[in-house]
Amino acid sequence: MTYKLILLRHGESEWNQKNLFTGWVDVDINEKGVAEAKRGAELLKSEDLLPDKLHTSLLRRAIHTAYLALDGCDRHWIPVERSWRLNERHYGGLQGLDKAETLEKYGEEQFMLWRRSYDTPPPVLDKDGEYSQFNDPRYADIAEDERPQTECLKDVVARMLPYWESNIKPDLAEGKTVLVTAHGNSLRALVKHLDKISDSDIAGLNIPTGIPLYYELDDNFEPVTPGGRYLDPEAAKASIEAVKNQGKKK
Amino acid sequence: MTYKLILLRHGESEWNQKNLFTGWVDVDINEKGVAEAKRGAELLKSEDLLPDKLHTSLLRRAIHTAYLALDGCDRHWIPVERSWRLNERHYGGLQGLDKAETLEKYGEEQFMLWRRSYDTPPPVLDKDGEYSQFNDPRYADIAEDERPQTECLKDVVARMLPYWESNIKPDLAEGKTVLVTAHGNSLRALVKHLDKISDSDIAGLNIPTGIPLYYELDDNFEPVTPGGRYLDPEAAKASIEAVKNQGKKK
Repeated sequence: MTYKLILLRHGESEWNQKNLFTGWVDVDINEKGVAEAKRGAELLKSEDLLPDKLHTSLLRRAIHTAYLALDGCDRHWIPVERSWRLNERHYGGLQGLDKAETLEKYGEEQFMLWRRSYDTPPPVLDKDGEYSQFNDPRYADIAEDERPQTECLKDVVARMLPYWESNIKPDLAEGKTVLVTAHGNSLRALVKHLDKISDSDIAGLNIPTGIPLYYELDDNFEPVTPGGRYLDPEAAKASIEAVKNQGKKK
Repeated sequence: MTYKLILLRHGESEWNQKNLFTGWVDVDINEKGVAEAKRGAELLKSEDLLPDKLHTSLLRRAIHTAYLALDGCDRHWIPVERSWRLNERHYGGLQGLDKAETLEKYGEEQFMLWRRSYDTPPPVLDKDGEYSQFNDPRYADIAEDERPQTECLKDVVARMLPYWESNIKPDLAEGKTVLVTAHGNSLRALVKHLDKISDSDIAGLNIPTGIPLYYELDDNFEPVTPGGRYLDPEAAKASIEAVKNQGKKK
């Protein structure tokens, strides 16, 4: 008996395109993102990997992606659970800032530390800041002192793992094919756990948008094939290269 | 303490437009239906009636309508529950047939009996018929001898009410503003129950597409204002008239 887990990072968003730090800011996917989500549906259909259960974040770009990916493979009707624990990393005071300008202003060392270090969070975002979601009703259930105002990847791992244990694993254990539609960093956090990637090696891992990543898991919820399998390996490879160059000066 | 319930019939579907009996056939809303759902979102927003919980059927036209209505009022992230018990009435052997041709073939008496009588279902739809969903995986949880092959409104009331009691009322009792996105007949069944409409009088009730119908309910889950309130009463009135003339010969 093996378990079937599919990870899907939302398609390109309005702010990916503008090269802004997004985090918990609730922007939608753009036209390219819509096309990516629909292509994701085609890949699921052609491999007959049809989800029985959906888990998403509370953010529009993941919810919209999931809607399109499921509608396109005729699984729009499956049960869904949503949680802030699958949200993108909270980018703190960087939210809303231009990536290239931030790189220019703070220099590559600080920039890469914020972007890729495991345990250095960006500056805290003020509760009443323009891009703060501190008082958004969707986060009312999170105790105020636990509600993020910035996060490093280590923080994401810490808040994502309890959801993996309590909400996703039980669905897999029931034999359901589970789709998790989420974000670059919440999915990196999950992949880090599944593939036992070290705190330093995780910096080098990028997950492309819109291409389903399939993990077959054994009885111990460990990947049968480390790293899983992208349903379109060529496109995944090209996309990973492109992400690596994001925000870099030419 | 009163409870807040919003009913929303899906926007115009591809088959409403073609004047075909739809029932459980899983067609999408059309362009007009998309516009109606977005307009529904505007109405919810302008009245500050923001749902905390969504209940839908398992059919694409209700799920798509809900997605657009919630996205448009920034409530895309609320929890959702879906059930076949909120599905449209199963139209049996009429599914896929042209309404005007059916009227012509069987005469107005038989036609109106199938459309509007409380307890006369259309002929049974063969399990393997072109428009049968008998073996669709989304209905696998329904015992085969309870899985509908045709339904009259009385049957819809019988399968919808347990869901109202066990799944919707508890959400209302918690103080949540509940949105139910469903179909002409599953919503008629619910309104019949709420407003205590007789088996004969329910024939005259039509619920327009895409216009939120708001019920404030008292401690006994009885409407404070019988019939509730359409958030756009003028449009509702015009739409009700149009539906009454559907399938009628000029």
